[in-house]
Amino acid sequence: MQAAELDGLLVTSEQHVRYFTGFVSQFWASPTRPWFVVVPAKGALVAVVPEIGGPGMAATWIEDVRTWPAPVPDDDGVSLLADAIIETTGPTGCIGAELGPEMVLRMPVNDFERVRDLIKPVTVGDGTQVLRQLRGVKSVAEVAKIRHVCEIVSDAFEALLDKLRAGMNEWEASRVMRIDVLERGADSSPYMMGVAGAGGYDNIIMGPTNRVIKNGDILILDTGTTFDGYYCDFDRNYAFGAPDEDAQRAYDIVFQATEAGLAAARPGATTTDLWRAMNEVLEAGGALSNNVGRLGHGLGMQLTEWPSNKTGDDTELLPGMVLTIEPGMEFKPGQMMVHEENIIVTEDGCELLTRRAPDEMWLID
Amino acid sequence: MQAAELDGLLVTSEQHVRYFTGFVSQFWASPTRPWFVVVPAKGALVAVVPEIGGPGMAATWIEDVRTWPAPVPDDDGVSLLADAIIETTGPTGCIGAELGPEMVLRMPVNDFERVRDLIKPVTVGDGTQVLRQLRGVKSVAEVAKIRHVCEIVSDAFEALLDKLRAGMNEWEASRVMRIDVLERGADSSPYMMGVAGAGGYDNIIMGPTNRVIKNGDILILDTGTTFDGYYCDFDRNYAFGAPDEDAQRAYDIVFQATEAGLAAARPGATTTDLWRAMNEVLEAGGALSNNVGRLGHGLGMQLTEWPSNKTGDDTELLPGMVLTIEPGMEFKPGQMMVHEENIIVTEDGCELLTRRAPDEMWLID
Repeated sequence: MQAAELDGLLVTSEQHVRYFTGFVSQFWASPTRPWFVVVPAKGALVAVVPEIGGPGMAATWIEDVRTWPAPVPDDDGVSLLADAIIETTGPTGCIGAELGPEMVLRMPVNDFERVRDLIKPVTVGDGTQVLRQLRGVKSVAEVAKIRHVCEIVSDAFEALLDKLRAGMNEWEASRVMRIDVLERGADSSPYMMGVAGAGGYDNIIMGPTNRVIKNGDILILDTGTTFDGYYCDFDRNYAFGAPDEDAQRAYDIVFQATEAGLAAARPGATTTDLWRAMNEVLEAGGALSNNVGRLGHGLGMQLTEWPSNKTGDDTELLPGMVLTIEPGMEFKPGQMMVHEENIIVTEDGCELLTRRAPDEMWLID
Repeated sequence: MQAAELDGLLVTSEQHVRYFTGFVSQFWASPTRPWFVVVPAKGALVAVVPEIGGPGMAATWIEDVRTWPAPVPDDDGVSLLADAIIETTGPTGCIGAELGPEMVLRMPVNDFERVRDLIKPVTVGDGTQVLRQLRGVKSVAEVAKIRHVCEIVSDAFEALLDKLRAGMNEWEASRVMRIDVLERGADSSPYMMGVAGAGGYDNIIMGPTNRVIKNGDILILDTGTTFDGYYCDFDRNYAFGAPDEDAQRAYDIVFQATEAGLAAARPGATTTDLWRAMNEVLEAGGALSNNVGRLGHGLGMQLTEWPSNKTGDDTELLPGMVLTIEPGMEFKPGQMMVHEENIIVTEDGCELLTRRAPDEMWLID
């Protein structure tokens, strides 16, 4: 914070409130009430939260918990928050907020502007860089949770070989997987994307639908499943009946691109290097395009986190960063192949958190 | 929009993009890329979306779909969006945005401010009131989805009588219910809150935990489960072994408060009337407090929506509004009892969408 010339941070989003306080609740699903935590550069944190959350927040390590009887649209914590910020920054300081890329301020913009007026001459700066640096490198405890959910889901993907069959629709296939990961001890499965297509799928974000899976289809299942608030994010491909030569070749190229990504991931390399290593294999393999915009990303309390494996991102990899390696390509018009694994960057390379996909596509007979 | 002096609306959040376009994707779980839809007071909608979402958006009824190769933090749709707004409003108009209570602008605040600068002298106004009015009254198709998920979950709550047993922990009880609603055809269960306590639970938002449920406990399960993008939101209470007199009495009072809420819900009454009808029963029954801040709320594409059943809210009920009736009270220090049902306001009263809770607490022997 000192380097960023900030006297403190204001955080409003579920993951940042959880990161600093340990407060865990599904109640974030209700958009009605804002929650605020002020994190000073030096000194004790202040939580300004709805009355309904007061006891829960007081049960965390935070001692200074202030509440109001939310919802009160006329002053939903605004004046309490302004006071807490000024106490933290002093009369002329600067508070950093969630203002930059991939950040969403989880409070009404009108209220944010009222807070900004009330705290003047204290100013609001951009806390994005500080938050990225803090969250980008995971602790041993964080990695253990991600590793655990990666193991659960690796098991479930393998077990699915016995449960999938032609004639199911995409919803049914996704539901079988969602139920299985819960039975294996995952907490929830907010992202369970299933798309199938003849010889290859044409997208990786619009499923599942009621489309019935037929022989000759390839199905991709891609899941963000959680354990104790931490995500895995990886996919597997299933061929219904022997895949044709083009699909087999695409699978092999993307598998090799994954290998290239795994080999390139080490401290000192950048996300641009990672992208280049994978992209060279994809281009040599005849990739037509890739509308995903990147070949992997950070992973942790959110399904996708900073940074992006993308040319020009140029983020230096550090030990403890958790990333997805996610090469993909359109190998024929309207037919895609995407692989994804999760890794942690180690002192001298990287380690897989997921059980590596098979080198030949899984077959459902 | 004319009444609000707006030439169009800019929407950025999952539910508003879905409401206007029909675009459904789980990909919103990734916070990396912003999505924009401009809804003119008159004329055709414009979608400005990441390339990865272009084909999916083009498959909706929207014809004007503009994309960029997101993520591009330097200009993540900002200039495309500014152009689309100016085309919609004309050179001196006003565009309404999600700025007010219960609204979150799902884009970086820094980018919002850049858009606001780029479109000058076009101004940004508050679209909250227009969005509330549109979404507050549900269509027949919307109600059918909510009714369907209410039926699934009503069945699951009853079936749970045979599946719960002392010795399970809160997580296990919640997981059994979550799996059961999926098996019955729900799409997902983002909110599955389970909390138990001896003689009564002390909160309704901090579970589930690993606390083992014992004889003498009361367990509340409260779920926001979805079907085709629409939520139910209701709870049920289970006594493990015969509940003591205080808990039985509290159950009865809150049951009667629900009856009073159901009787008061009709067109022309307000949310304040609803609150008063329930609150009178709770106060007469000796309620110590209620930190929830209201006794129910709107329901639909979100777990909780405007309005709030609360003194001073004063929203007039209209046929087609879907609401929760949610009386609750602390009946002894640290012991709460909360009931919840879902209703639709009809021409001359209201209709239950949930199967009414039993008039005596369900008993797990």
